[in-house]
Amino acid sequence: MRVEAAARAAGVALVWRPFLLGPLFAKQGWNDSPFNLYPVKGRYMWRDLERLCAAQGIPFRRPSVFPRSGLVAARVAARFAGEAWLPEFVRRVYQANFAEDREIAERSVVAELLESLGQPAAERLAAAETAEAKAALRAQTERAERLGIFGAPSFVVGDEIFWGNDRLEAALAWRAPARP
Amino acid sequence: MRVEAAARAAGVALVWRPFLLGPLFAKQGWNDSPFNLYPVKGRYMWRDLERLCAAQGIPFRRPSVFPRSGLVAARVAARFAGEAWLPEFVRRVYQANFAEDREIAERSVVAELLESLGQPAAERLAAAETAEAKAALRAQTERAERLGIFGAPSFVVGDEIFWGNDRLEAALAWRAPARP
Repeated sequence: MRVEAAARAAGVALVWRPFLLGPLFAKQGWNDSPFNLYPVKGRYMWRDLERLCAAQGIPFRRPSVFPRSGLVAARVAARFAGEAWLPEFVRRVYQANFAEDREIAERSVVAELLESLGQPAAERLAAAETAEAKAALRAQTERAERLGIFGAPSFVVGDEIFWGNDRLEAALAWRAPARP
Repeated sequence: MRVEAAARAAGVALVWRPFLLGPLFAKQGWNDSPFNLYPVKGRYMWRDLERLCAAQGIPFRRPSVFPRSGLVAARVAARFAGEAWLPEFVRRVYQANFAEDREIAERSVVAELLESLGQPAAERLAAAETAEAKAALRAQTERAERLGIFGAPSFVVGDEIFWGNDRLEAALAWRAPARP
Protein backbone atom coordinates (compact mmCIF):
# COMPACT_ATOMS: atom_id res chain seq x y z
CA MET A 1 0.00 0.00 0.00
CA ARG A 2 2.84 2.40 0.67
CA VAL A 3 5.91 1.33 -1.29
CA GLU A 4 5.35 3.65 -4.23
CA ALA A 5 4.90 6.81 -2.20
CA ALA A 6 7.80 5.87 0.09
CA ALA A 7 10.16 5.15 -2.81
CA ARG A 8 9.20 8.40 -4.52
CA ALA A 9 9.81 10.37 -1.32
CA ALA A 10 13.22 8.70 -0.94
CA GLY A 11 14.16 9.31 -4.57
CA VAL A 12 14.63 5.57 -5.13
CA ALA A 13 13.67 3.90 -8.42
CA LEU A 14 11.19 1.06 -7.99
CA VAL A 15 10.89 -1.93 -10.34
CA TRP A 16 8.06 -4.37 -9.63
CA ARG A 17 8.96 -8.06 -9.93
CA PRO A 18 5.82 -10.09 -9.27
CA PHE A 19 6.34 -13.73 -8.29
CA LEU A 20 4.32 -16.58 -6.81
CA LEU A 21 4.67 -17.20 -3.09
CA GLY A 22 3.26 -20.75 -3.05
CA PRO A 23 6.23 -22.40 -4.80
CA LEU A 24 8.67 -20.52 -2.53
CA PHE A 25 6.76 -21.66 0.56
CA ALA A 26 6.85 -25.22 -0.78
CA LYS A 27 10.66 -24.97 -0.99
CA GLN A 28 10.75 -24.18 2.75
CA GLY A 29 8.57 -27.22 3.46
CA TRP A 30 5.36 -25.21 3.97
CA ASN A 31 2.33 -26.55 2.14
CA ASP A 32 0.09 -23.77 3.43
CA SER A 33 0.50 -20.26 4.78
CA PRO A 34 2.68 -20.26 7.92
CA PHE A 35 -0.21 -18.34 9.53
CA ASN A 36 -2.21 -21.57 9.25
CA LEU A 37 0.61 -24.04 9.86
CA TYR A 38 1.60 -22.37 13.15
CA PRO A 39 -1.70 -21.20 14.59
CA VAL A 40 -0.37 -19.64 17.80
CA LYS A 41 2.00 -17.48 15.81
CA GLY A 42 -0.65 -17.01 13.13
CA ARG A 43 -3.10 -15.61 15.67
CA TYR A 44 -0.49 -13.10 16.72
CA MET A 45 0.32 -12.17 13.12
CA TRP A 46 -3.34 -11.38 12.35
CA ARG A 47 -3.55 -9.19 15.40
CA ASP A 48 -0.28 -7.49 14.50
CA LEU A 49 -1.63 -6.77 10.99
CA GLU A 50 -4.82 -5.40 12.44
CA ARG A 51 -2.92 -3.04 14.73
CA LEU A 52 -0.55 -1.92 11.96
CA CYS A 53 -3.40 -1.19 9.57
CA ALA A 54 -5.33 0.69 12.25
CA ALA A 55 -2.26 2.80 13.05
CA GLN A 56 -1.74 3.64 9.37
CA GLY A 57 -5.40 4.17 8.50
CA ILE A 58 -5.45 1.24 6.07
CA PRO A 59 -8.77 -0.65 5.97
CA PHE A 60 -8.41 -4.25 7.08
CA ARG A 61 -10.72 -7.16 7.64
CA ARG A 62 -9.40 -10.66 8.17
CA PRO A 63 -10.33 -12.71 5.09
CA SER A 64 -12.84 -15.50 5.75
CA VAL A 65 -10.79 -17.75 3.43
CA PHE A 66 -7.01 -17.70 3.74
CA PRO A 67 -4.90 -17.93 1.77
CA ARG A 68 -6.73 -17.27 -1.48
CA SER A 69 -4.99 -18.11 -4.73
CA GLY A 70 -3.36 -15.04 -6.23
CA LEU A 71 -2.48 -16.89 -9.43
CA VAL A 72 -4.77 -14.98 -11.82
CA ALA A 73 -3.82 -11.62 -10.31
CA ALA A 74 -0.11 -12.53 -10.28
CA ARG A 75 -0.24 -13.42 -13.97
CA VAL A 76 -1.74 -10.01 -14.74
CA ALA A 77 0.87 -8.33 -12.52
CA ALA A 78 3.76 -10.19 -14.15
CA ARG A 79 2.52 -9.55 -17.68
CA PHE A 80 1.94 -5.84 -17.09
CA ALA A 81 4.57 -5.07 -14.46
CA GLY A 82 5.87 -2.06 -16.36
CA GLU A 83 2.50 -0.36 -16.89
CA ALA A 84 1.56 2.79 -15.06
CA TRP A 85 -1.76 1.31 -13.86
CA LEU A 86 -0.18 -1.81 -12.40
CA PRO A 87 0.67 -0.59 -8.86
CA GLU A 88 -2.91 0.59 -8.38
CA PHE A 89 -4.16 -2.76 -9.66
CA VAL A 90 -1.99 -4.53 -7.07
CA ARG A 91 -3.33 -2.32 -4.30
CA ARG A 92 -6.91 -3.01 -5.36
CA VAL A 93 -6.31 -6.76 -5.35
CA TYR A 94 -4.89 -6.57 -1.83
CA GLN A 95 -7.72 -4.35 -0.69
CA ALA A 96 -10.30 -6.71 -2.22
CA ASN A 97 -8.79 -9.63 -0.31
CA PHE A 98 -7.70 -8.04 2.95
CA ALA A 99 -10.33 -5.34 3.46
CA GLU A 100 -13.39 -6.45 1.48
CA ASP A 101 -13.05 -10.22 1.87
CA ARG A 102 -13.66 -10.78 -1.84
CA GLU A 103 -12.82 -13.94 -3.80
CA ILE A 104 -9.76 -12.63 -5.59
CA ALA A 105 -8.97 -16.15 -6.81
CA GLU A 106 -11.85 -15.79 -9.29
CA ARG A 107 -11.24 -14.41 -12.76
CA SER A 108 -14.50 -12.46 -12.58
CA VAL A 109 -13.28 -10.52 -9.53
CA VAL A 110 -9.90 -9.79 -11.12
CA ALA A 111 -11.75 -8.71 -14.27
CA GLU A 112 -13.87 -6.32 -12.24
CA LEU A 113 -10.78 -4.81 -10.62
CA LEU A 114 -9.21 -4.31 -14.04
CA GLU A 115 -12.38 -2.63 -15.27
CA SER A 116 -12.44 -0.34 -12.25
CA LEU A 117 -9.13 1.00 -13.58
CA GLY A 118 -10.48 1.48 -17.08
CA GLN A 119 -8.57 -1.52 -18.40
CA PRO A 120 -10.10 -3.89 -21.00
CA ALA A 121 -10.42 -6.90 -18.72
CA ALA A 122 -10.95 -9.70 -21.23
CA GLU A 123 -8.03 -8.54 -23.32
CA ARG A 124 -5.69 -8.13 -20.33
CA LEU A 125 -6.59 -11.52 -18.88
CA ALA A 126 -6.06 -13.21 -22.24
CA ALA A 127 -2.63 -11.58 -22.56
CA ALA A 128 -1.76 -12.68 -19.01
CA GLU A 129 -2.68 -16.29 -19.72
CA THR A 130 -0.64 -17.02 -22.81
CA ALA A 131 1.99 -19.74 -22.49
CA GLU A 132 4.66 -17.06 -22.77
CA ALA A 133 3.23 -14.96 -19.93
CA LYS A 134 2.88 -18.03 -17.71
CA ALA A 135 6.49 -18.97 -18.40
CA ALA A 136 7.62 -15.45 -17.55
CA LEU A 137 5.93 -15.61 -14.14
CA ARG A 138 7.50 -19.01 -13.50
CA ALA A 139 10.91 -17.62 -14.44
CA GLN A 140 10.40 -14.68 -12.13
CA THR A 141 9.49 -17.02 -9.27
CA GLU A 142 12.60 -19.11 -9.92
CA ARG A 143 14.68 -15.95 -9.90
CA ALA A 144 13.20 -15.00 -6.54
CA GLU A 145 14.13 -18.43 -5.24
CA ARG A 146 17.70 -18.09 -6.49
CA LEU A 147 17.96 -14.74 -4.72
CA GLY A 148 17.03 -16.42 -1.41
CA ILE A 149 13.55 -14.90 -1.18
CA PHE A 150 11.09 -16.81 1.02
CA GLY A 151 8.31 -14.26 1.64
CA ALA A 152 6.56 -11.16 0.38
CA PRO A 153 6.96 -8.31 0.12
CA SER A 154 10.72 -8.53 -0.37
CA PHE A 155 12.80 -5.58 -1.46
CA VAL A 156 16.01 -6.30 -3.35
CA VAL A 157 18.67 -3.57 -3.29
CA GLY A 158 21.90 -4.63 -4.96
CA ASP A 159 22.93 -7.85 -3.18
CA GLU A 160 20.72 -7.21 -0.15
CA ILE A 161 17.25 -8.55 0.55
CA PHE A 162 14.87 -6.78 2.91
CA TRP A 163 11.77 -8.71 3.88
CA GLY A 164 8.49 -7.26 4.98
CA ASN A 165 6.73 -3.97 5.46
CA ASP A 166 8.89 -3.41 8.57
CA ARG A 167 12.02 -3.26 6.44
CA LEU A 168 10.82 -0.88 3.73
CA GLU A 169 12.58 2.14 5.25
CA ALA A 170 15.82 0.19 5.71
CA ALA A 171 15.65 -0.96 2.08
CA LEU A 172 15.13 2.57 0.81
CA ALA A 173 17.98 3.88 2.95
CA TRP A 174 20.40 1.09 2.06
CA ARG A 175 23.71 2.06 0.59
CA ALA A 176 26.30 -0.67 0.20
CA PRO A 177 29.15 -0.14 2.69
CA ALA A 178 32.43 0.76 1.03
CA ARG A 179 34.58 -2.32 0.56
CA PRO A 180 38.06 -2.24 2.05
CA MET B 1 19.94 -4.41 24.76
CA ARG B 2 17.65 -1.41 24.60
CA VAL B 3 14.39 -2.20 26.39
CA GLU B 4 15.35 -0.64 29.71
CA ALA B 5 16.45 2.70 28.30
CA ALA B 6 13.47 2.81 25.93
CA ALA B 7 10.96 2.03 28.69
CA ARG B 8 12.52 4.63 30.96
CA ALA B 9 12.38 7.26 28.20
CA ALA B 10 8.70 6.39 27.58
CA GLY B 11 7.83 6.48 31.28
CA VAL B 12 6.63 2.87 31.14
CA ALA B 13 7.18 0.47 34.03
CA LEU B 14 9.06 -2.68 33.03
CA VAL B 15 8.70 -6.05 34.75
CA TRP B 16 11.01 -8.83 33.56
CA ARG B 17 9.38 -12.26 33.17
CA PRO B 18 12.07 -14.70 32.07
CA PHE B 19 10.87 -17.92 30.44
CA LEU B 20 12.30 -20.79 28.40
CA LEU B 21 11.90 -20.62 24.65
CA GLY B 22 12.58 -24.29 23.89
CA PRO B 23 9.30 -25.61 25.37
CA LEU B 24 7.34 -22.90 23.53
CA PHE B 25 9.04 -23.79 20.24
CA ALA B 26 8.22 -27.46 20.89
CA LYS B 27 4.53 -26.49 21.22
CA GLN B 28 4.67 -25.02 17.69
CA GLY B 29 6.21 -28.22 16.37
CA TRP B 30 9.76 -26.84 16.20
CA ASN B 31 12.44 -29.09 17.67
CA ASP B 32 15.21 -26.60 16.91
CA SER B 33 15.54 -22.89 16.24
CA PRO B 34 13.45 -21.87 13.19
CA PHE B 35 16.69 -20.27 11.93
CA ASN B 36 18.02 -23.83 11.56
CA LEU B 37 14.77 -25.53 10.55
CA TYR B 38 14.18 -23.11 7.65
CA PRO B 39 17.70 -22.37 6.40
CA VAL B 40 16.75 -20.00 3.57
CA LYS B 41 14.82 -17.81 5.96
CA GLY B 42 17.46 -18.40 8.64
CA ARG B 43 20.21 -17.07 6.36
CA TYR B 44 18.15 -13.93 5.86
CA MET B 45 17.47 -13.55 9.58
CA TRP B 46 21.19 -13.67 10.43
CA ARG B 47 21.91 -11.03 7.83
CA ASP B 48 19.01 -8.93 9.11
CA LEU B 49 20.41 -9.16 12.66
CA GLU B 50 23.85 -8.21 11.44
CA ARG B 51 22.50 -5.12 9.66
CA LEU B 52 20.34 -4.12 12.64
CA CYS B 53 23.22 -4.41 15.09
CA ALA B 54 25.54 -2.47 12.78
CA ALA B 55 22.97 0.30 12.44
CA GLN B 56 22.56 0.51 16.22
CA GLY B 57 26.22 0.14 17.10
CA ILE B 58 25.66 -3.15 18.93
CA PRO B 59 28.54 -5.63 18.63
CA PHE B 60 27.48 -8.81 16.86
CA ARG B 61 29.18 -11.99 15.71
CA ARG B 62 27.20 -14.98 14.55
CA PRO B 63 27.65 -17.72 17.17
CA SER B 64 29.56 -20.77 15.94
CA VAL B 65 27.06 -22.97 17.83
CA PHE B 66 23.38 -22.12 17.61
CA PRO B 67 21.24 -22.29 19.55
CA ARG B 68 23.09 -22.63 22.82
CA SER B 69 21.16 -23.70 25.89
CA GLY B 70 20.14 -20.72 27.98
CA LEU B 71 18.86 -22.93 30.80
CA VAL B 72 21.43 -22.01 33.45
CA ALA B 73 21.19 -18.30 32.62
CA ALA B 74 17.38 -18.43 32.49
CA ARG B 75 17.27 -20.00 35.94
CA VAL B 76 19.39 -17.17 37.31
CA ALA B 77 17.22 -14.62 35.50
CA ALA B 78 13.97 -16.14 36.80
CA ARG B 79 15.25 -16.44 40.36
CA PHE B 80 16.57 -12.86 40.50
CA ALA B 81 14.18 -11.12 38.09
CA GLY B 82 13.47 -8.32 40.55
CA GLU B 83 17.09 -7.46 41.33
CA ALA B 84 18.67 -4.26 40.11
CA TRP B 85 21.65 -6.12 38.59
CA LEU B 86 19.52 -8.54 36.60
CA PRO B 87 19.01 -6.52 33.37
CA GLU B 88 22.75 -5.99 33.05
CA PHE B 89 23.28 -9.73 33.65
CA VAL B 90 20.85 -10.50 30.81
CA ARG B 91 22.67 -8.12 28.49
CA ARG B 92 26.02 -9.68 29.34
CA VAL B 93 24.67 -13.17 28.62
CA TYR B 94 23.39 -12.04 25.21
CA GLN B 95 26.61 -10.26 24.47
CA ALA B 96 28.65 -13.32 25.48
CA ASN B 97 26.63 -15.47 23.08
CA PHE B 98 25.94 -13.10 20.19
CA ALA B 99 29.06 -10.93 20.16
CA GLU B 100 31.80 -12.98 21.85
CA ASP B 101 30.74 -16.48 20.76
CA ARG B 102 31.15 -17.83 24.28
CA GLU B 103 29.68 -21.08 25.61
CA ILE B 104 26.89 -19.56 27.69
CA ALA B 105 25.41 -23.01 28.24
CA GLU B 106 28.24 -23.70 30.68
CA ARG B 107 27.87 -22.91 34.35
CA SER B 108 31.44 -21.65 34.48
CA VAL B 109 30.69 -18.99 31.88
CA VAL B 110 27.50 -17.91 33.64
CA ALA B 111 29.46 -17.82 36.90
CA GLU B 112 32.04 -15.57 35.32
CA LEU B 113 29.36 -13.19 34.08
CA LEU B 114 27.85 -13.06 37.57
CA GLU B 115 31.25 -12.29 39.04
CA SER B 116 31.83 -9.53 36.49
CA LEU B 117 28.82 -7.85 38.12
CA GLY B 118 30.19 -8.31 41.62
CA GLN B 119 27.68 -11.07 42.40
CA PRO B 120 28.67 -14.13 44.47
CA ALA B 121 28.43 -16.66 41.65
CA ALA B 122 28.35 -19.93 43.55
CA GLU B 123 25.67 -18.63 45.88
CA ARG B 124 23.53 -17.21 43.07
CA LEU B 125 23.76 -20.37 41.01
CA ALA B 126 22.84 -22.52 43.98
CA ALA B 127 19.80 -20.36 44.68
CA ALA B 128 18.80 -20.56 41.01
CA GLU B 129 18.96 -24.34 41.00
CA THR B 130 16.77 -25.23 43.93
CA ALA B 131 13.66 -27.27 43.15
CA GLU B 132 11.56 -24.22 43.98
CA ALA B 133 13.44 -21.94 41.58
CA LYS B 134 13.22 -24.52 38.80
CA ALA B 135 9.48 -24.86 39.37
CA ALA B 136 9.08 -21.08 39.23
CA LEU B 137 10.78 -20.92 35.82
CA ARG B 138 8.58 -23.76 34.57
CA ALA B 139 5.49 -21.92 35.82
CA GLN B 140 6.63 -18.74 34.10
CA THR B 141 7.11 -20.65 30.83
CA GLU B 142 3.63 -22.15 31.14
CA ARG B 143 2.21 -18.71 31.76
CA ALA B 144 3.92 -17.45 28.60
CA GLU B 145 2.35 -20.32 26.69
CA ARG B 146 -1.11 -19.52 28.04
CA LEU B 147 -0.66 -15.91 26.95
CA GLY B 148 -0.03 -17.08 23.37
CA ILE B 149 3.70 -16.27 23.36
CA PHE B 150 5.78 -18.17 20.80
CA GLY B 151 9.00 -16.14 20.61
CA ALA B 152 11.31 -13.77 22.40
CA PRO B 153 11.48 -10.99 23.21
CA SER B 154 7.75 -10.57 23.73
CA PHE B 155 6.28 -7.50 25.40
CA VAL B 156 2.95 -7.93 27.18
CA VAL B 157 0.89 -4.75 27.69
CA GLY B 158 -2.52 -5.45 29.17
CA ASP B 159 -4.13 -7.99 26.84
CA GLU B 160 -1.79 -7.26 23.95
CA ILE B 161 1.36 -9.10 22.94
CA PHE B 162 4.09 -7.43 20.92
CA TRP B 163 6.76 -9.70 19.53
CA GLY B 164 10.29 -8.76 18.67
CA ASN B 165 12.68 -5.85 18.78
CA ASP B 166 10.72 -4.31 15.87
CA ARG B 167 7.64 -3.94 18.05
CA LEU B 168 9.24 -2.40 21.14
CA GLU B 169 8.15 1.13 20.25
CA ALA B 170 4.58 -0.01 19.50
CA ALA B 171 4.45 -1.83 22.84
CA LEU B 172 5.66 1.21 24.75
CA ALA B 173 3.16 3.45 22.94
CA TRP B 174 0.23 1.06 23.34
CA ARG B 175 -2.86 2.40 25.03
CA ALA B 176 -5.95 0.22 24.93
CA PRO B 177 -8.56 1.78 22.62
CA ALA B 178 -11.62 3.02 24.49
CA ARG B 179 -14.37 0.42 24.41
CA PRO B 180 -17.72 1.49 23.00
